[in-house]
Amino acid sequence: MSVIKVAILGFGTVGEGVYRTIHSHAEELKTVLGKKVEVAAILIRNQEKQRNISGDVLVTSDFEDILKLPQLDIVVEAIVGKESPHLFLKKSIERGCHIITANKEMFAHHGAELQKLAEENGVSVGFEATVAGGIPVIQTIRHLLKVNRVHQLQGILNGTSNFILTEMREKKQSFAEALLQAQQNGFAEADPTNDVEGFDAFYKTMILSRIAFGDEPNWEDVERQGITAITRELIEAAETYGLRFKHVAQINIKEGELKAVVKPVLVNQDHPFYHVEGVQNAVNVRSDIVGGITLQGPGAGMFPTASAIIEDLVFVCQNKLADVPKTTGFVSDDKTLQGEQEYWFVQGVTEKLPKELTVVDQSVAGFCILKAAKKDLIWLANKEEVLCFPILGEIKLIKEETLDSVAVS
Amino acid sequence: MSVIKVAILGFGTVGEGVYRTIHSHAEELKTVLGKKVEVAAILIRNQEKQRNISGDVLVTSDFEDILKLPQLDIVVEAIVGKESPHLFLKKSIERGCHIITANKEMFAHHGAELQKLAEENGVSVGFEATVAGGIPVIQTIRHLLKVNRVHQLQGILNGTSNFILTEMREKKQSFAEALLQAQQNGFAEADPTNDVEGFDAFYKTMILSRIAFGDEPNWEDVERQGITAITRELIEAAETYGLRFKHVAQINIKEGELKAVVKPVLVNQDHPFYHVEGVQNAVNVRSDIVGGITLQGPGAGMFPTASAIIEDLVFVCQNKLADVPKTTGFVSDDKTLQGEQEYWFVQGVTEKLPKELTVVDQSVAGFCILKAAKKDLIWLANKEEVLCFPILGEIKLIKEETLDSVAVS
Repeated sequence: MSVIKVAILGFGTVGEGVYRTIHSHAEELKTVLGKKVEVAAILIRNQEKQRNISGDVLVTSDFEDILKLPQLDIVVEAIVGKESPHLFLKKSIERGCHIITANKEMFAHHGAELQKLAEENGVSVGFEATVAGGIPVIQTIRHLLKVNRVHQLQGILNGTSNFILTEMREKKQSFAEALLQAQQNGFAEADPTNDVEGFDAFYKTMILSRIAFGDEPNWEDVERQGITAITRELIEAAETYGLRFKHVAQINIKEGELKAVVKPVLVNQDHPFYHVEGVQNAVNVRSDIVGGITLQGPGAGMFPTASAIIEDLVFVCQNKLADVPKTTGFVSDDKTLQGEQEYWFVQGVTEKLPKELTVVDQSVAGFCILKAAKKDLIWLANKEEVLCFPILGEIKLIKEETLDSVAVS
Repeated sequence: MSVIKVAILGFGTVGEGVYRTIHSHAEELKTVLGKKVEVAAILIRNQEKQRNISGDVLVTSDFEDILKLPQLDIVVEAIVGKESPHLFLKKSIERGCHIITANKEMFAHHGAELQKLAEENGVSVGFEATVAGGIPVIQTIRHLLKVNRVHQLQGILNGTSNFILTEMREKKQSFAEALLQAQQNGFAEADPTNDVEGFDAFYKTMILSRIAFGDEPNWEDVERQGITAITRELIEAAETYGLRFKHVAQINIKEGELKAVVKPVLVNQDHPFYHVEGVQNAVNVRSDIVGGITLQGPGAGMFPTASAIIEDLVFVCQNKLADVPKTTGFVSDDKTLQGEQEYWFVQGVTEKLPKELTVVDQSVAGFCILKAAKKDLIWLANKEEVLCFPILGEIKLIKEETLDSVAVS
């Protein structure tokens, strides 16, 4: 029986999860692939650190040692940062290896180039683990896309932000307290910028956009906002309206153009994200035949992410990623997305509003819910003392008579 | 360019959805498959009825006419009933056609036999549409199973029952009123037995069991219960505990044996099914590496079901269903499922209970919540005036001090 030789770059949470899963699921892998899967080498940074790695695995801090191995079939990359992993993966492809990555920042920047290079070299690229951990989002979108035309994607893609928002609401904590809690639980880094400022979700959104729409918007045109402006006061006021803050990435087509936003929005209890809590991730895909489908599950963590990588490993070995058809590039205009009027949750309005902005509800002091087209709201949103958040979906909870009785304050 | 010739058996909601989708998505299909997909024939029952079918399609009520077509590649079956569709599909396979079915009752009974026959004849069987309409449940489970070992499956698999339970709770309707509403909306048949007595969900459960565990329990051993015993009073009492009734199918391994139940249970707001409302379906898969994943979406309807069938069509044309590995037959014991004590929502207890049955809460007159092993509860559940429903998951809402203060009534 021949053997599949794997190198793992990085031995943090994800790298170690992959290593341990290849061992614990050796029998399953052998059954599915008809070959034994063996970890031949692991790239680490600190040679001194004690690790629980079998003696026959080459453990090195020099990537060139790995490239020189007599047999190497698959390179799994689970490092932080973007330039050196990119270089390692380029070299791996050129050596004829399939590559699998969990690194969203690197892949958002260099994914298209790596995929092209892989195609030229007849190898495959697996990246299921870059988005939503163990939830098979990429696989599902590819599957749907065989015949469906995707209109819109929404996702809770950053577990850390979702955990913080959940803690703030449930335990009435401040942002700082909830962040500390996330750090103590190992859900947030010492420097949490990447998560709480929305960069992590942004990279994932760009990767999803490429999969679902065959393209991505100009990065500069994407509104990216983290959750640092969300206060306990805002969360409580929203709750009295039956609304919850969620950090949501959304991609859709407006007037023939691909638009993406990554920012805090409000959802009511009819929205599938209302009850996605803690470190969970979720993705909602709207497509023309099937309608809306939601996937929910663990977005990060040692084993969920390892699971996504091992699934990719099986796919690349069966050489199936390569022959999944590219998206047709066809993007469809969903008319319902172009409805001008939207609902907004607004804090800090002190003046009389013009009649284009309908006040739907102002029963909570200091806050109101407006119905308005975005273009009519921009001057208000730009005021320093005003905060505006879009509300996704219908807001059934607000009775239509309220609208008549308080309209135009 | 060569052509793929399809016959559609049945022209009800599903059959017509498939016909229309093949037309509306002709370009996508051609791009993905490199061939034109053409509906060559449609089997109908009533020749008199007016239908919107193109003149070049053979429309017949005699299946033999279809078998005699000079070219026939795929037979899509969307008929009600089990014996004639079974016969038609056997003949189709023997003629060398791939088959795709949306018929859960037929497939639960004859699926294994048809799959074996298809294997012998070198063709594929698609049945994604038999379970949860447009949600790619079967595909996702197969995908997870490449390396994960599935422990447990839970599903809301019958949209009609879920719609009725939702209406009863939201609009404070009786079962009869909500059923009538479902019938008026086209969600329930004139004879609703199949849906409300849990047969439909049962068939789907057996199909899922075969996919996820490579086997199914003895049908006679499966506890199957519909929703006809659920009253408005029960729903309201449950609501005061923060619990909702859901009609849930569950399959797992207990003491090395495959167990399935299909019945009404209670879930609290932490359970992913708490907010699955109306005609939505949902499936929760727990497996060893990735943990729990939930898929939610439209469980029925013309286009969601058509979408599942067209996806199967693409797969069988690409000959990919056939080489998806069979489940390894490995079933794993999830220790957490064997915890003896469970929570129960009980109506109609009038006597003092033995101490094995801990009363956790009895703040709503006529109802109580018990903590007990199932074996200790059976005598009580068997009483005619008593109704017992299991509560899935933890019940966080009940404070532990309540337990101390009221325990042992």
